[in-house]
Parts: sequence; structure tokens; C-alpha cells
Amino acid sequence: MTSLAELQSKVGETLGTSEWIEIGQDRINTFADVTEDHQFIHLDAEAAAKTPFGGTIAHGFLTLSLMSKMSEDAMPVLDGIAMAVNYGSDKVRFIHPVPSGSRIRGHFKLLNVDVKNPKQILIKAEGTVEIENIEKPAMIVEMLTMQFLK
Amino acid sequence: MTSLAELQSKVGETLGTSEWIEIGQDRINTFADVTEDHQFIHLDAEAAAKTPFGGTIAHGFLTLSLMSKMSEDAMPVLDGIAMAVNYGSDKVRFIHPVPSGSRIRGHFKLLNVDVKNPKQILIKAEGTVEIENIEKPAMIVEMLTMQFLK
Repeated sequence: MTSLAELQSKVGETLGTSEWIEIGQDRINTFADVTEDHQFIHLDAEAAAKTPFGGTIAHGFLTLSLMSKMSEDAMPVLDGIAMAVNYGSDKVRFIHPVPSGSRIRGHFKLLNVDVKNPKQILIKAEGTVEIENIEKPAMIVEMLTMQFLK
Repeated sequence: MTSLAELQSKVGETLGTSEWIEIGQDRINTFADVTEDHQFIHLDAEAAAKTPFGGTIAHGFLTLSLMSKMSEDAMPVLDGIAMAVNYGSDKVRFIHPVPSGSRIRGHFKLLNVDVKNPKQILIKAEGTVEIENIEKPAMIVEMLTMQFLK
């Protein structure tokens, strides 16, 4: 647990790195069903092999949606937190596709801490998703999270 | 199917509205598992009822991830398209929570058509997600999609 003052002192700093998450084809298939996005590039190994990607790739939104878990792993938890709500993002860029079967993890840098009122703190962090054994990142995002204190 | 010239002539215009999508608790539960985000506000009806939300709500990232399906419903399809790849977003804001059991749909406005080369067209659209019987939108997003032509 981290005090607000401690968190504020870390603006501009790298906060941490998440655990690795495996992006297996099963996870991609389930994500396709739950979001109703069945484009062949995510599901059809034979057709995807004929594209520049060379095989099936994760949905960009799957990588992005894993940022909640990754930030939970890597970001300090504020003292007295009741819940954290996704407030939005200022910029998302998908840079390198995530091949089915690869592992990814997130690196986080604290950009801003905005005390809206004593019970609501809006945190802006830059997340960068690394793909194991690939130099380019999968994605960068500037995430906004509203932390509600008890 | 739409020609590039037709699409370019529609910059600044509203393009269409998707079908309704039901956000049942089963979909939210599956999304929680596939993204490893099990925060109580999405899953625990009893605990969520005690928050200002009054019950479980969808993950913001679930609403956002449904934009692929919704834009497929509502946006014109370019002549000769081979595949569409999520390029990123310039701004995402979650405005009103989506209660478990509600229905949502997307409205799309064309912001920009950028011809990167004869085979790659980057399309920017503003998506607004409506919740049935709720005045405020769930979310607004400026989406970037790279369309690859054959």
C-alpha cells in the first residue's frame, strides 16, 4: 500500500513491470466470441499464414484489455482504496502484432496524479506492452484510472 | 461496398448505427476470465449493489472491445478490402457505466480518410456508445483502423 504523498513523489518515474501473460489461441478464441469479432486474422491459422503476420494474432483490444490485470500487478495500490474505475485513455497505438502463443507483459510509468477531491484520485500512467523475444512493443497506451477511496 | 472516393466524400458525416448488443452477466463473467480482471464491481452483485453503481457493471474495456463488431455493422466496407487492423485510438472516455443486463449500440461519424498508399487506407471515426433508456453515452472513442486492400 502507498500513501498519496508517496505516489505524487513518483510522477515521471517507472513504477514497475507485470507478470508475463500467455496469449494462447484459446484465449484469443474466447475473446473473439465474447466481443463478436471473428475476423479470420485472429482465428483461421491457414488463412492468417498467408498474410504478412504469418499466422493468427491477438485482437488489439485483447492486449489493451489485459492492461487492467497488468497494472494491478505492477502499479502501487493507494492506501484506503475502495475501487478503481477505468476512466479512459488519451492515446493508444498498436505497434507490433501479438502472435498467437506468445507471452506479453506490461511496463508502467506514472505520468500524473490529479486529486479531484479527497476521495477521488485520477491517475494517468503510460503502459508499454512487451512481447517476449520481439524488440518492438505490442502497444503503448496512456491510461486514466479513477481511484475511489473509502 | 463503397469506393474510396465515396468514403472520402463522407468525411464529417454520420455513417450509421450498429445493431443492439446485450451485455448480460454471462458476457461480463467471460470477459473477466479472459482478461483476468475480476474486480468485484463487475462480478459480485451483492457488493456492487452497495456502490454508487447500484449493481454490477460491464468492464469499460468490454464496451470498447465491442467497437469492432459495432463498426462492422455500421461503417461502409471499402471496395477490395483484404483485412482491417486496429491501429489505435486517439481518445477514449468512459462516461456512464453500462449496467449488467442492459443493451448498447454504437453510432459512428467519419473524421478522416488518410491514403497511406494505394493499398493502405487509415480511417479515423468517432464512435459513441448509447445505452438503451439512459441519456448519457457509455463511451466516446476516436478509433483508427488501417484498411488493407487486395
